[in-house]
Amino acid sequence: MDSAPPPTDHQHIVFTDGLALECGVTLQRLVVAYRTYGRLNAERSNAVLVCHALTGDQYAAETNPVTGKPGWWDTVVGPGRPIDTDRLFVICANVLGGCMGSTGPRSPRDDDAGTPWGTDFPPVTIRDMVRAQKRLVDHLGIRRLFAVIGGSMGGMQALDWAAAYPEAVFAAVPIATAAHHSAQNIAFHEVGRQAIFADPDWQDGRYWETDKVPARGLAVARMAAHITYLSEQALTRKFGRRLRAGPTGGLSLFGDIFEVESYLQYQGSTFVRRFDANSYLTITRAMDFFDLAAEYGGDLSKAFAGTRTRFCLVSFSSDWLFPTTESRAVARALNRAAANVSFVEINSDKGHDAFLLDEPDFHRTLAGFLAGCAEHAGLPS
Amino acid sequence: MDSAPPPTDHQHIVFTDGLALECGVTLQRLVVAYRTYGRLNAERSNAVLVCHALTGDQYAAETNPVTGKPGWWDTVVGPGRPIDTDRLFVICANVLGGCMGSTGPRSPRDDDAGTPWGTDFPPVTIRDMVRAQKRLVDHLGIRRLFAVIGGSMGGMQALDWAAAYPEAVFAAVPIATAAHHSAQNIAFHEVGRQAIFADPDWQDGRYWETDKVPARGLAVARMAAHITYLSEQALTRKFGRRLRAGPTGGLSLFGDIFEVESYLQYQGSTFVRRFDANSYLTITRAMDFFDLAAEYGGDLSKAFAGTRTRFCLVSFSSDWLFPTTESRAVARALNRAAANVSFVEINSDKGHDAFLLDEPDFHRTLAGFLAGCAEHAGLPS
Repeated sequence: MDSAPPPTDHQHIVFTDGLALECGVTLQRLVVAYRTYGRLNAERSNAVLVCHALTGDQYAAETNPVTGKPGWWDTVVGPGRPIDTDRLFVICANVLGGCMGSTGPRSPRDDDAGTPWGTDFPPVTIRDMVRAQKRLVDHLGIRRLFAVIGGSMGGMQALDWAAAYPEAVFAAVPIATAAHHSAQNIAFHEVGRQAIFADPDWQDGRYWETDKVPARGLAVARMAAHITYLSEQALTRKFGRRLRAGPTGGLSLFGDIFEVESYLQYQGSTFVRRFDANSYLTITRAMDFFDLAAEYGGDLSKAFAGTRTRFCLVSFSSDWLFPTTESRAVARALNRAAANVSFVEINSDKGHDAFLLDEPDFHRTLAGFLAGCAEHAGLPS
Repeated sequence: MDSAPPPTDHQHIVFTDGLALECGVTLQRLVVAYRTYGRLNAERSNAVLVCHALTGDQYAAETNPVTGKPGWWDTVVGPGRPIDTDRLFVICANVLGGCMGSTGPRSPRDDDAGTPWGTDFPPVTIRDMVRAQKRLVDHLGIRRLFAVIGGSMGGMQALDWAAAYPEAVFAAVPIATAAHHSAQNIAFHEVGRQAIFADPDWQDGRYWETDKVPARGLAVARMAAHITYLSEQALTRKFGRRLRAGPTGGLSLFGDIFEVESYLQYQGSTFVRRFDANSYLTITRAMDFFDLAAEYGGDLSKAFAGTRTRFCLVSFSSDWLFPTTESRAVARALNRAAANVSFVEINSDKGHDAFLLDEPDFHRTLAGFLAGCAEHAGLPS
């Protein structure tokens, strides 16, 4: 796989009145690609914004047109699911900087239609992503979201939505996330970026000029990241030390001898078919930049001063990328702000990825919280 | 840095009677490079074998001739140190498969003097490394080692020595180690190998034919591995989210913006000046293969049946690469074998690397255990 993914026509809205980014640059033309599920009620009071993670996209609850696989949150979003599309209207947008239709490094430059931004794409932040989503929400005529829900980077967005637009967020569910990216998380991202930079096919980010993409570098980046999404227990349960070739064929320098190796290589090779390397650089940077307290004088509680948003924080016991301690720190800040907050640590051995997997306790927690909020918000059941 | 490290003349012994490896290949010519510290007593009863880790070498307690830096265990080995060279004779050998003088991928082939083994070097195991060390110990006229001591991969060797040559090991100190490499550890190694394979300068391992080495791939491998050697707390304490450029210069896609990034890049770039990529592949594989229980029908206690060796197992509380649970499993197996074993978890926030750092509790533990053993062994004080 050495060529770019095929172009796909994604549902989108174009905003031509510009988006001023935190870095000082103004994007003249903003495209937000999105999908919706369920039906917006007459009062426009049942809208839920679902925010995707680093490598996610807007296809939360339907077949992904690029991969042909089920939506990444098919088990959570849908009729009768925890985010029940029989009563809720779900919006999911590709993030700013992404590669699934929203403005990002693969989009044409403002000043020179035809050539992509590439690595000249301005460094965007989680707040910039949230502002782009706000445009979409405004465009849809929704003044207040019933809920903003997301895991990992999606959880950063949920926190940032509640801080930036408290009146527009009735409830927020930040899952498996943190109010800042830790030194260890930055370090893992940096390894991935260096792997991409080290790939000669990256060509200083101008790979669109050839028919190659930095597939090997991006695959290594994905492999390193993927380990951090799983727990040691999950890896051991899934693969242990099982050999692919059987014990007799085991002793060799090359080849994927252990099952865990072929699994990782598969994860790396399928990823490059669907993801743009420059988007990966852009979005990992946005996560690294995220430090919500720093924007409020170092006191996270000030980000939520006077908030009326109802929060449900969820962490997973075996998540070492965004460990429970991070959610607990957010809960403490929300408590200091006298916010309405519940905090649940789900017992799971599936690591960070647990928020994407079949975790009945998590799904019950989410459904229960949303049911309670729906009652308080006066949503018709 | 694109050229190979300069050749250094290392103290060594050549064995021409061959070494039969576990993979079935016999090395015709075995070179073991080593260094010693202190003086062997007349009874030859005070010898301590120190086993180095993945990227270590024989220069444990003196200036390293390649890097010009202090020995990797200068704080532990020396006069008045925990491994006290005023009374003990310390041997440290470069492992089989290494790149500091012992036979490895950079050595000339048996059948065709002049060209290096490269990736045709046979896959070696921890047991093979131990057998090569045993040759050296025999050559020095030492029938029983007072102690075999090592951390990480060095700890695997200490365990394997005690299993393979119980009569030749009075005491064993396996530190920050495990009786097998876990799925997560294999996964991290595989990321590093794939980063090397992805570097076009690797040239299928025949990089000695050009004046290039796979510096970028090896640096990425080192960066990924280095994160696993530290704890999250240590990274946070050392770097937190501190910016190199100051907050105003922060928002950029490129460059080492956070201090943790420049630190990792430095770790990667200095590593390639001293280490051979094919050795890295060979030694990471040897660690992955290690599964001591598997060699004894799946029951680790059988590896130590009837042992009279005194064991001191040491783990560090924040080590997530070789967590305390792994040492505890070894302790349980030794208990089932009715072995003489003490097990100490050192409270430290420095992660896996703690065994290389200034950790007074660890040093006191090691010194105390060796003093007790010296008394039992009847070593003159």
